[in-house]
Amino acid sequence: MHEDFRAALGDIPVIDDEVGIKRKSRDFFWYSPILFEQLRDKTAELVVCPRDEKDVITVASACARYGVPLTPRGGGTGNYGQSMPFEGGIVLDMMGLDQLQWVKDGVARVQAGKLLYDLDQELWAQGKELRMFPSTKKTATIGGHICGGAGGLGSLTWGFLDDRGNVVGARIVTLEEEPRIIELRGNDTDLINRSFGTTGIVVELELPVENRTHWRDMIVAFDDFISAVQFAQEFTASPGIAKYACAVVDSTITPYFVHFAKVIPEGKPVVLLMVAPSGVIPTAEIAAGHSGTIVYEEDMAEGESNPAKEPVYEYCWNHTTLQVLKHDRSVTYIQTVFPSETMYRDIEALRELFGDEVLWHLEFIRAGSDIACTGASVVRYTTADRLEEVMSLHEKQGVTVVNPHVSNLEDGARDVVSYRDRAEFKLGIDPYGLLNPGKMRDYTPAKIRQAG
Amino acid sequence: MHEDFRAALGDIPVIDDEVGIKRKSRDFFWYSPILFEQLRDKTAELVVCPRDEKDVITVASACARYGVPLTPRGGGTGNYGQSMPFEGGIVLDMMGLDQLQWVKDGVARVQAGKLLYDLDQELWAQGKELRMFPSTKKTATIGGHICGGAGGLGSLTWGFLDDRGNVVGARIVTLEEEPRIIELRGNDTDLINRSFGTTGIVVELELPVENRTHWRDMIVAFDDFISAVQFAQEFTASPGIAKYACAVVDSTITPYFVHFAKVIPEGKPVVLLMVAPSGVIPTAEIAAGHSGTIVYEEDMAEGESNPAKEPVYEYCWNHTTLQVLKHDRSVTYIQTVFPSETMYRDIEALRELFGDEVLWHLEFIRAGSDIACTGASVVRYTTADRLEEVMSLHEKQGVTVVNPHVSNLEDGARDVVSYRDRAEFKLGIDPYGLLNPGKMRDYTPAKIRQAG
Repeated sequence: MHEDFRAALGDIPVIDDEVGIKRKSRDFFWYSPILFEQLRDKTAELVVCPRDEKDVITVASACARYGVPLTPRGGGTGNYGQSMPFEGGIVLDMMGLDQLQWVKDGVARVQAGKLLYDLDQELWAQGKELRMFPSTKKTATIGGHICGGAGGLGSLTWGFLDDRGNVVGARIVTLEEEPRIIELRGNDTDLINRSFGTTGIVVELELPVENRTHWRDMIVAFDDFISAVQFAQEFTASPGIAKYACAVVDSTITPYFVHFAKVIPEGKPVVLLMVAPSGVIPTAEIAAGHSGTIVYEEDMAEGESNPAKEPVYEYCWNHTTLQVLKHDRSVTYIQTVFPSETMYRDIEALRELFGDEVLWHLEFIRAGSDIACTGASVVRYTTADRLEEVMSLHEKQGVTVVNPHVSNLEDGARDVVSYRDRAEFKLGIDPYGLLNPGKMRDYTPAKIRQAG
Repeated sequence: MHEDFRAALGDIPVIDDEVGIKRKSRDFFWYSPILFEQLRDKTAELVVCPRDEKDVITVASACARYGVPLTPRGGGTGNYGQSMPFEGGIVLDMMGLDQLQWVKDGVARVQAGKLLYDLDQELWAQGKELRMFPSTKKTATIGGHICGGAGGLGSLTWGFLDDRGNVVGARIVTLEEEPRIIELRGNDTDLINRSFGTTGIVVELELPVENRTHWRDMIVAFDDFISAVQFAQEFTASPGIAKYACAVVDSTITPYFVHFAKVIPEGKPVVLLMVAPSGVIPTAEIAAGHSGTIVYEEDMAEGESNPAKEPVYEYCWNHTTLQVLKHDRSVTYIQTVFPSETMYRDIEALRELFGDEVLWHLEFIRAGSDIACTGASVVRYTTADRLEEVMSLHEKQGVTVVNPHVSNLEDGARDVVSYRDRAEFKLGIDPYGLLNPGKMRDYTPAKIRQAG
């Protein structure tokens, strides 16, 4: 790394010891044995820790002048190497930009590096809350969630982060000799949404915030998996129950939920819920209709903050897989979306087909006007070929697969998205292609210029 | 009316002058020329105005002892004669029971006769709001809405009043010599939901309340009706936009919207919206995609309370028809539900078929996991036979018709509901069949006893 580049950083804090650099060069990519092999040696040459936007501009300018790749990083909780530097250079640790700037008219403006847990605490103090957070709320940042995530807890009501209205605005720094500040509003925020930071260094975000609900964590146990799914479907299709999460977890996974060992009966699939207080009674009534038993109920904030307890959300979404991985490193996972018309038939057929190889986990979310049943099942890993086969057998059944074993934007997208707009935008703000290189599959500045 | 009955009422206020009795014996049944002919002569013999639950018990006991029919009444804003006394007797004017008792954990307990406008004002003072209210918010009561209504503003997010979770509890007084108090919880509140007061005198209700949103009233104008519907569908299918209302009103109706004459361009269909502040920009972006123009935007509370302004909700739901009726008494209306798969085809075919006879008005609501497009179109009335034909031609097209020209519970229900449970319950709490007689079509105590 060029000495002049180091000098250009001035007094901006850096991490330059090998262990520190390695730690900040990795995320949870090891969920995927495929990505583990592909990415295990990726590392930055230096980690730079800006304290404010001025520092970010200084770093961006230096990178442009010296041709140094820059990979922005939040909490490093991604699962696809989103914030891993594929071509060396620096990792830009954004966690120093951690101020909640203002809240008004249902919108909050916040610096990108703020921890989601801290952000929600500060919003709670104002009677507000986040619409969505990932299961890694305690360690992830808001910028990381929006640039590297998709949705999570809260998606049951609010859809995904790229649904219109879930991001109000974003402020980015360009990677040029003279970095510019660009404010994106409304639709234009799509340019940075799940971009892995390839389309600008996001320094601030405006997000809709809701009035705070004192969510109740609930766990409901069922006699069999299909009853649990039927309950979940009836629950999610009840508009009169305000809700934040609904995950169905099979009895093959619950033995790994050590914290809840005493409350979850052996051999019982469960549904994990976050429900508004006014919805607890109707939820119990729906459960009773499917022979479900409420085995746990707690205030979410209590579960989250009391060291003797754990919030249900740390057993949902990608944390479900993590709870298994804590005890058994031989598993991985797949992501799926079930067609609503044939959901039960597909689930039964695939359960029959895979037996013990797939440990079932479903998450219900809002998708457009409807509710969708998505899967994040744990898979006992043998070989890369077999994992491919497991995914293609799902597709053969008519189930959509969103492959979590790829590290570029295009292959991992939920939908077929045109990256043309993003690529053209990127050309203007990252003319040397230094922002998180390798993540936008088909992008090199020359290629886009030629096509343009 | 027996002198002893009058004496048994003690000092409970009554209205016994002819004009006063007639006024309290009617509702908005004259929306329907069919019901107008059927019900125009229905009248009570006396209006009794209890001040508290004790008074209600006194009246109920007297009615049981003297065999006097009792028809409970809130604001009298129903459209099907819900609170009109079909067999004389007394009208029980509930508006004296108007206390908000408490609000906690997202639930409010309130006396049934409280005006919705006053209730929302008091909830606002605590940072809360109602999930739903009818377009008659300023004159209707909470008890009347739940016992006589179905949904309204807010149903776009929360579904209908009979969706699980939208009523938490209800306290009723029975009609017996020794009236009992019964507290219904959860599912059991279905017994009084849209019961027209046939299954007990509802004196108190527990309802879920939400944290207050400062809703924005918006009116968006379009070049043609189908563009307006397409916008409405995209808007309602955007989970990231918090919303309370979405009505599509054709350019044949807007000339009757005198208050908005200056803002709605001639010949343009409009969509009336209530949107959270954070949703205004994405809503404008969706509108732009359908060549829509935002012609009006105002704070709902300002529109509601400023005498020079009017809230958009008084142009939605049954107020749309009322705005036309103010200027032209020759119209009536129909209620429909469009199948989502064939919605556009059905709308276009029916618009072609009816031409100027039907003035189009759609309301989008949440129905189960999905969004439904319902119709409340205005119809130029000629004869009862033709009105029947207009409804059956809708049915022939595959559109569900909910007939608003009938005055009993069963015929006017949205779905085929079993009234057996209600009838059995009624037998226990109204053994003489004196509660709002004539509204439960197949009910007489003898008939139910025989069947039982």
